[in-house]
Amino acid sequence: MTLNIGLIGAGRIGVVHAATITQRIPSARLVAVADVNEAAARACAERYNVPFFTADPQAVIARPDVHAVLICSSTDTHAPLIEAAAQAGKPIFCEKPIALDLAAIDRALNAVARAGVPLQIGFNRRFDPNFERLRRAVAEGEIGEPHLLHIVSRDPAPPPIEYIKVSGGLFLDMAIHDFDMARFLLGSEIEEVHAIGAVRVDPAIGAAGDIDTAVTLLRFANGAIGTIDNSRRAVYGYDQRAEVFGSKGMAQALNNFPNQVILSTADAVRRDLPLHFFMQRYIESYQREIEAFVQAVTQGTPPPVSGEDGRIAVVIGLAAQRSLREGRPVRVQEIGA
Amino acid sequence: MTLNIGLIGAGRIGVVHAATITQRIPSARLVAVADVNEAAARACAERYNVPFFTADPQAVIARPDVHAVLICSSTDTHAPLIEAAAQAGKPIFCEKPIALDLAAIDRALNAVARAGVPLQIGFNRRFDPNFERLRRAVAEGEIGEPHLLHIVSRDPAPPPIEYIKVSGGLFLDMAIHDFDMARFLLGSEIEEVHAIGAVRVDPAIGAAGDIDTAVTLLRFANGAIGTIDNSRRAVYGYDQRAEVFGSKGMAQALNNFPNQVILSTADAVRRDLPLHFFMQRYIESYQREIEAFVQAVTQGTPPPVSGEDGRIAVVIGLAAQRSLREGRPVRVQEIGA
Amino acid sequence: MTLNIGLIGAGRIGVVHAATITQRIPSARLVAVADVNEAAARACAERYNVPFFTADPQAVIARPDVHAVLICSSTDTHAPLIEAAAQAGKPIFCEKPIALDLAAIDRALNAVARAGVPLQIGFNRRFDPNFERLRRAVAEGEIGEPHLLHIVSRDPAPPPIEYIKVSGGLFLDMAIHDFDMARFLLGSEIEEVHAIGAVRVDPAIGAAGDIDTAVTLLRFANGAIGTIDNSRRAVYGYDQRAEVFGSKGMAQALNNFPNQVILSTADAVRRDLPLHFFMQRYIESYQREIEAFVQAVTQGTPPPVSGEDGRIAVVIGLAAQRSLREGRPVRVQEIGA
Amino acid sequence: MTLNIGLIGAGRIGVVHAATITQRIPSARLVAVADVNEAAARACAERYNVPFFTADPQAVIARPDVHAVLICSSTDTHAPLIEAAAQAGKPIFCEKPIALDLAAIDRALNAVARAGVPLQIGFNRRFDPNFERLRRAVAEGEIGEPHLLHIVSRDPAPPPIEYIKVSGGLFLDMAIHDFDMARFLLGSEIEEVHAIGAVRVDPAIGAAGDIDTAVTLLRFANGAIGTIDNSRRAVYGYDQRAEVFGSKGMAQALNNFPNQVILSTADAVRRDLPLHFFMQRYIESYQREIEAFVQAVTQGTPPPVSGEDGRIAVVIGLAAQRSLREGRPVRVQEIGA
Repeated sequence: MTLNIGLIGAGRIGVVHAATITQRIPSARLVAVADVNEAAARACAERYNVPFFTADPQAVIARPDVHAVLICSSTDTHAPLIEAAAQAGKPIFCEKPIALDLAAIDRALNAVARAGVPLQIGFNRRFDPNFERLRRAVAEGEIGEPHLLHIVSRDPAPPPIEYIKVSGGLFLDMAIHDFDMARFLLGSEIEEVHAIGAVRVDPAIGAAGDIDTAVTLLRFANGAIGTIDNSRRAVYGYDQRAEVFGSKGMAQALNNFPNQVILSTADAVRRDLPLHFFMQRYIESYQREIEAFVQAVTQGTPPPVSGEDGRIAVVIGLAAQRSLREGRPVRVQEIGA
Repeated sequence: MTLNIGLIGAGRIGVVHAATITQRIPSARLVAVADVNEAAARACAERYNVPFFTADPQAVIARPDVHAVLICSSTDTHAPLIEAAAQAGKPIFCEKPIALDLAAIDRALNAVARAGVPLQIGFNRRFDPNFERLRRAVAEGEIGEPHLLHIVSRDPAPPPIEYIKVSGGLFLDMAIHDFDMARFLLGSEIEEVHAIGAVRVDPAIGAAGDIDTAVTLLRFANGAIGTIDNSRRAVYGYDQRAEVFGSKGMAQALNNFPNQVILSTADAVRRDLPLHFFMQRYIESYQREIEAFVQAVTQGTPPPVSGEDGRIAVVIGLAAQRSLREGRPVRVQEIGA
Repeated sequence: MTLNIGLIGAGRIGVVHAATITQRIPSARLVAVADVNEAAARACAERYNVPFFTADPQAVIARPDVHAVLICSSTDTHAPLIEAAAQAGKPIFCEKPIALDLAAIDRALNAVARAGVPLQIGFNRRFDPNFERLRRAVAEGEIGEPHLLHIVSRDPAPPPIEYIKVSGGLFLDMAIHDFDMARFLLGSEIEEVHAIGAVRVDPAIGAAGDIDTAVTLLRFANGAIGTIDNSRRAVYGYDQRAEVFGSKGMAQALNNFPNQVILSTADAVRRDLPLHFFMQRYIESYQREIEAFVQAVTQGTPPPVSGEDGRIAVVIGLAAQRSLREGRPVRVQEIGA
Repeated sequence: MTLNIGLIGAGRIGVVHAATITQRIPSARLVAVADVNEAAARACAERYNVPFFTADPQAVIARPDVHAVLICSSTDTHAPLIEAAAQAGKPIFCEKPIALDLAAIDRALNAVARAGVPLQIGFNRRFDPNFERLRRAVAEGEIGEPHLLHIVSRDPAPPPIEYIKVSGGLFLDMAIHDFDMARFLLGSEIEEVHAIGAVRVDPAIGAAGDIDTAVTLLRFANGAIGTIDNSRRAVYGYDQRAEVFGSKGMAQALNNFPNQVILSTADAVRRDLPLHFFMQRYIESYQREIEAFVQAVTQGTPPPVSGEDGRIAVVIGLAAQRSLREGRPVRVQEIGA
């Protein structure tokens, strides 16, 4: 059976999913695409042979031939679209974050619960082969009880200032992936965060009320302690690593490179830079998260990244924002209770 | 414009190409598939939505809607099928080796020349990102004039003895890729070979008249010296490396791994084994060689791996066989003049 | 000219220095050794051909043929011995920490200042080739302005509980090296610390009132943010790494291994464990710090690690202790003003 | 008991051993030094506090307080000095090669056999931690039966032409270490060699009748096949690696570096060049080979590198020279029978 998917949002990440579904997932098919910018919807439809396009997301949700929806539109529309799709009884895949405020998230999750539809949140990095292997090392006890976690997550360059302004800030826009990764890798909840931030990359980011450099200290329910290093600009490219240290050893996920060639000259022993950004580094994970969603929908199993997972990551992001603002450790319960 | 391709041979490598064309190359489409085993042709047609299948390769070549043919059948059929396709005026992609004897190769290449059709030989490793980068290091002078070359090419396990018996032997079946790689990397012709072989992996391979372990010493026209290490069984997986040393430095292509995770325990610092075999390691190169073929055909440019490239690799393989048999260095001219 | 050195304390680290001076530093010579355990002094004297031994440290300080003293006795004796040596006008090398309370440190440093004698503190890791190279990368601008620092410092196994009890605790006994390293690498002062600790390795350490696992968050005067990971037990051996990330790049110091051999078998690609502990890993740095001391004394130049460096590291350790106790970030000024 | 050693030859390698014995080997002591250049003998004696120096090697051999001699003089003097020392009943450590012609070697070894004195040849690389570990991997079966060997041995720069002229040529001067390493690593004798050489680095080397670039193909008695890559100039520094491939896996010894720092910038991910030359790379092995010699002499055990080992390496070098000259594989028996 082929799962017919309706795509809402034909921007950067929407197009990634359109390409993945069309070219790499034989068990799914794009049958409709919506974008408030109708030209974008049309371009996507033409490029990927999607038979229907529209400027109206509701029109996609409403179509009887749409078995499931992918919500890839702007963040502020996620929660209402989740509610609408849930009410229409459609399984939902939604990009992160669900929303920037908890009330909206809770309304959306309640709608999903009432409708009993599957909901998967787009934390694609869980499907990256490196982080999957790291998780497996922890889950299968290869390194014993986890004691310490360190995540490095640095982008090659900051997004445009206009994007920064509406992004929700570094913690909710960028570090949210790392908060989810921290929970995923350790299999334990975060109880307290202490976030420190700075503007080191671009003063315009500070002028926009955001930071571009941050360290977040995490305390886990299982007693482990974690740290996350974030920067909006690593000049050498996308830096995506993690290390878990435990009672029986350590597991480290290093970066991916475009090739395995080492050059030794009179100057240095060197290699090319790491894969530049998420489209190169995480391309495989995008395919695998959609495959997992299709499988969950068609087989009736729970999606591997739940709505609750999406909610918790936002809660931690809000706790980090408060910690940064107030200059003190913040217990997650203060936010998300 | 979409290039309609007819596939001849729906065995292991034929199916790789069928999957690649169907799923990853929007500019091409499989329109016919032949296999002497009609069930195999049918299965391939069903799996990849190919509208026509047959047990008769000529039927594929003859179809007006077939713009180009991919010859992936058994080695002994390559040369006659090249001739047939050339006579039909169809562009040709043919798996290596063209044939095991030079007379057959020359007849085929003559037919191609007379017909003026493009012919590309399936030396896919030239399209691997590691070896492409290595070639670029040499071609752009990053390591100066090349002096020494070392290629390591070891399979994870030998093929079945029945296959060994008809394979043409290690030099023409397996090392032929490395002979082509040597020429490709250095951009210079091989003038002399000295091959040493042994049966170390499985006595049955020796009983079948073949060897399973070999070293081939190469002298190049540009004065460089090369060595190739071959084994039919590396217990740790597919070992595919190369190193070029020159007047200004060295470039090394190391192996690819399924992830970049390092585990440190009380026993050792370790990582998972390299990508297991060619389907994992070279999957990207299969796509890129077909893309290059499609582009050459549709744009009228010369295919990047010529019939002559296919011929020379066989000549070197035959020289290696003679060297092994006679226990002496053999000049390539002795064979291929 | 040969510098005659008197050694006070013939325990583990004292013997390291005795061996270094005797075997590797032609410009210095051990002429006297003291240890409150006279048998230890005698054993050291015999082993390294030291002409004089005693149970009385003052007897070493007082000898006219002693040009300089190395204080390697227990921590509680460091400050009074510094005072005594300073009053005797002898140049001083003293192991870390100077003392566990600031008043004692300040008395000792005042005595040194009044006497005008050179004083060098034993932060040997500054002389490790890896960390020296890292410092150079920062100092020479290879990675631009530093934004983030991460230090990993894990011992292979905890010391005996009896030692733990008098050690001053993880921050003053173990992390003190890392606090110094953080200042050294960034060339900037630490203004605030937030320390989190846990007992994960051995409950007996907790029962002794100490922790065995810690993360310390650091804010630097230059705006950089740092984290330090500490554990008393890494089952894979001594883990001593650091990473500095800046506006123009990143520099990482990885671990040292006993050999550069990689083994690939059917199970894994692996190598032997890192150098096991400080005696293997830092042996070169011990030699180089003593060479630097000898040079400073004989040439009248300032020692490369000052008494103030020794004091600041203790201040940061005390701030970390307070932060741990009170569960909040602590400004260094609260302690060390 | 301390072993009194007399050093013959105070040139580059003689001084290395003098420093090693004086500073690092408490169980041995230099008591006499000879060099035909008496000023060199005097300088060495002064620097390392050697009580006796002379221009006459025989005077060193003859001294009753000399328990053992180290022969580090020019190659042409090795064999006669071995004979003289053997006749004097003195244990002998002699640098490689014993001599460039077999008759001289055999006279020397016969003298040693008649006298029953221990003789150790200076193949120091056997004592390098990397190659020791590689040997252990083979000897203990970690990689099963060895099938293939590859040695890379490249100097950072050629020696002066004047040295080249009297060196015996690349095979006897430089590759001789690799011939010994090949036998050592595999624990099997070399039966046939095929050497190819070229002048790629400096035409003056060719004008002097030598080559600067070579590949030697080796057949071992145990059925393994090996290759050695040599170059007189690797612009990135001293390149000293080896790889053994066997039925159960592979062991690779990689290069040593001055530090473990990785720099990632906008241009590349890079590290400093490998240790530059033998004095840096093999310093530890020089100490360990002399320790082994001292131990063999004082404990009456056989030296770990025998006179026969020294002879065989020369035989293989002569076979390689003949192979190069005659352009064919040469059986070692042709030379050394």
